[in-house]
Amino acid sequence: MLALPAGFRFAGVSCGIKTKKNTKDITLIVSDKPCSGAGVYTTNQVVAAPVVLCRTRTPSSKLRAIVVNSGNANACTGTKGLEDARRMASLTANAIDAESDESVLVMSTGVIGRFLPLEKIESGIRDAAGKLSHSIESFHDAADGICTTDAFRKVTTRTVDLGTHGKFTIAGMAKGAGMIGPKMATMLGIVLTDAPLTSDQARRLLQKSVDRSFNCISVEGHTSTNDTVVLLASGLGLGRSPLDQDGEAAFAEQLENMCIQLAKQIPEDGEGATHLIEIQVEGAQSDADADKIARSVALSNLVKTAITGGDPNWGRIVSAVGYAGVPVETDRLALKLNGFQLFLEGEPIPFVAKEVSDAIKNKKETLIQLKVGLGSGKAAHWTTDLNCEYVRFNSEYTT
Amino acid sequence: MLALPAGFRFAGVSCGIKTKKNTKDITLIVSDKPCSGAGVYTTNQVVAAPVVLCRTRTPSSKLRAIVVNSGNANACTGTKGLEDARRMASLTANAIDAESDESVLVMSTGVIGRFLPLEKIESGIRDAAGKLSHSIESFHDAADGICTTDAFRKVTTRTVDLGTHGKFTIAGMAKGAGMIGPKMATMLGIVLTDAPLTSDQARRLLQKSVDRSFNCISVEGHTSTNDTVVLLASGLGLGRSPLDQDGEAAFAEQLENMCIQLAKQIPEDGEGATHLIEIQVEGAQSDADADKIARSVALSNLVKTAITGGDPNWGRIVSAVGYAGVPVETDRLALKLNGFQLFLEGEPIPFVAKEVSDAIKNKKETLIQLKVGLGSGKAAHWTTDLNCEYVRFNSEYTT
Repeated sequence: MLALPAGFRFAGVSCGIKTKKNTKDITLIVSDKPCSGAGVYTTNQVVAAPVVLCRTRTPSSKLRAIVVNSGNANACTGTKGLEDARRMASLTANAIDAESDESVLVMSTGVIGRFLPLEKIESGIRDAAGKLSHSIESFHDAADGICTTDAFRKVTTRTVDLGTHGKFTIAGMAKGAGMIGPKMATMLGIVLTDAPLTSDQARRLLQKSVDRSFNCISVEGHTSTNDTVVLLASGLGLGRSPLDQDGEAAFAEQLENMCIQLAKQIPEDGEGATHLIEIQVEGAQSDADADKIARSVALSNLVKTAITGGDPNWGRIVSAVGYAGVPVETDRLALKLNGFQLFLEGEPIPFVAKEVSDAIKNKKETLIQLKVGLGSGKAAHWTTDLNCEYVRFNSEYTT
Repeated sequence: MLALPAGFRFAGVSCGIKTKKNTKDITLIVSDKPCSGAGVYTTNQVVAAPVVLCRTRTPSSKLRAIVVNSGNANACTGTKGLEDARRMASLTANAIDAESDESVLVMSTGVIGRFLPLEKIESGIRDAAGKLSHSIESFHDAADGICTTDAFRKVTTRTVDLGTHGKFTIAGMAKGAGMIGPKMATMLGIVLTDAPLTSDQARRLLQKSVDRSFNCISVEGHTSTNDTVVLLASGLGLGRSPLDQDGEAAFAEQLENMCIQLAKQIPEDGEGATHLIEIQVEGAQSDADADKIARSVALSNLVKTAITGGDPNWGRIVSAVGYAGVPVETDRLALKLNGFQLFLEGEPIPFVAKEVSDAIKNKKETLIQLKVGLGSGKAAHWTTDLNCEYVRFNSEYTT
């Protein structure tokens, strides 16, 4: 049974932005009282209007709502786009009787370069405001409303018992960018908790968790104009307020694990993906170096197509390590693929090709383990294979 | 009629490294007298044995030969791999009566992580040495011997008339890494001239030309362990020796144009590639910034699949500009796709989708023109679309 954090209500409705009938495209999440919150946004320099708006409104201790539309990214839409994003916030503030427009965050996801259909959105927001409820069903409706071409809804919730610090619930939803998703190319995440976080704590904990989760997944490395993850904390859970240093550390660990669980669902998504590839790097000179190595392997089309074909062509992996742009010494490098040692201290290790190939083909998860042998830096990254389904989905016509 | 630079002889033979019968896999290029030469090598930190060797032997004014094998990269092969590369050089020096092993450069391309079949290579080198000739036919045999999965031979020659500075011939061959080629993932280039370059001039001119040609093409951005481009200059052409500053500048321009012509054949290659995509960037803060923007667009799978499908989804291009990691201001940015203005000063420009789509579908070349509006930096990059053929070729089993 899924638990929901106290103090939040949800709705997801269809207002006709997406052409497919009865597909939810407006999501509304409301905090009953003003709450703490923070956001982590795309590093793309071409930034969608809703991101421009949200950056000015977080962190904050007075947030009341998040409104999301799917089917249109409101990106590359100039001055009018920014006015439209503001309008979405003020329509929402009116519909839920919030004191200020500033207490509403806005997210959009979908095709780039088109203006929002504001009349549809206005009726959608009114409709959603009338359907708000603190129920699993509404939570699921809200999670559906942020999806674009996702093959499945991405949610996770957990109740964390921090002993004397209290007992809190965290719930998260995400959309995005699996093998099937990059057509829309946006990743959105919303994490809600009833833990008593200050806005500064929310900002700090969210950034750390996102760095180890949503920032460690990729399908093709395309940082979108709209990528956003937001954390809201109502403070209505059972426990001491505020969280002290120990409590914060314990909560942070749970939040990070939950974000990883949620983020991994993104590359898992899609008919196209036949393998979820996990890349573990250890022994780099720093965590940042390990991250660069993991990312270089994860983004290599040659590695991804080899996994698609069950091809133990490990030279492609070692080569991707070599051009990651961080110090590597070939004669200290070691590689395991699904547990098979293929390369050790600069020398190839003999292996039975069919055994390793079968081990790739017969499992949905592929594990690539790299030891760099130069320090204690480590990182993990999750990605998918690259196959014809991906190409097919992404070469289809937008219009 | 193709012209060849004076002073060089060529051969390409089959010695059985490649499993397909009678496929040429040994190339030998001999300079009749010791000549000037320089090399530009992979920036990958995992480096194949022949690259390790060649780096110690260039630049030089005493080069006699280049020996190349295809079908095996001699990469990730440890100490034995380096001994094998040295052995290829000494076998060649013996076969052509060169005074020193050091005067021979070695290149290898093919699968990573396997030891060279030295007996086959030894007989191949002997065979090739007996067939050396200064003929177009032998030049073509040599160009065939460096290929792996290339669909066509890549050569170009030109005679350049530099007026009072002289009249020289430049000939080049390359292999590589088109849609069909990245299975082997190596790019090799050999440029020969009879211009009277010193080894220092050869080094300087080659680096500059490679930066504007071979370093501006990509299929999937995978810098291989073996990438090598070498320039040899016999000095036997008709003209003043050495070239003065003006003569060098005039020669450099011709060399650069020839390298671009040769390099563009690489992404053009392969059944898989349905479009050659040229990305022109101007108005960046520097040439280096323009290069990063062009590269970011060229490496985006989302841009490449959109072109495959004739989809004028220009938001993907603008988004790839935004995450290139260099300064960009959305409201100064402009984009043309095959001549159609789609984005200007941060605003979308209305267009007839079918017209733009047809313009992509009906041409083999796609032209993406970006204006950044921040300075005078410019760059060009050439790449291919991404389609199912690419995936199919690269997910096939290595063994």
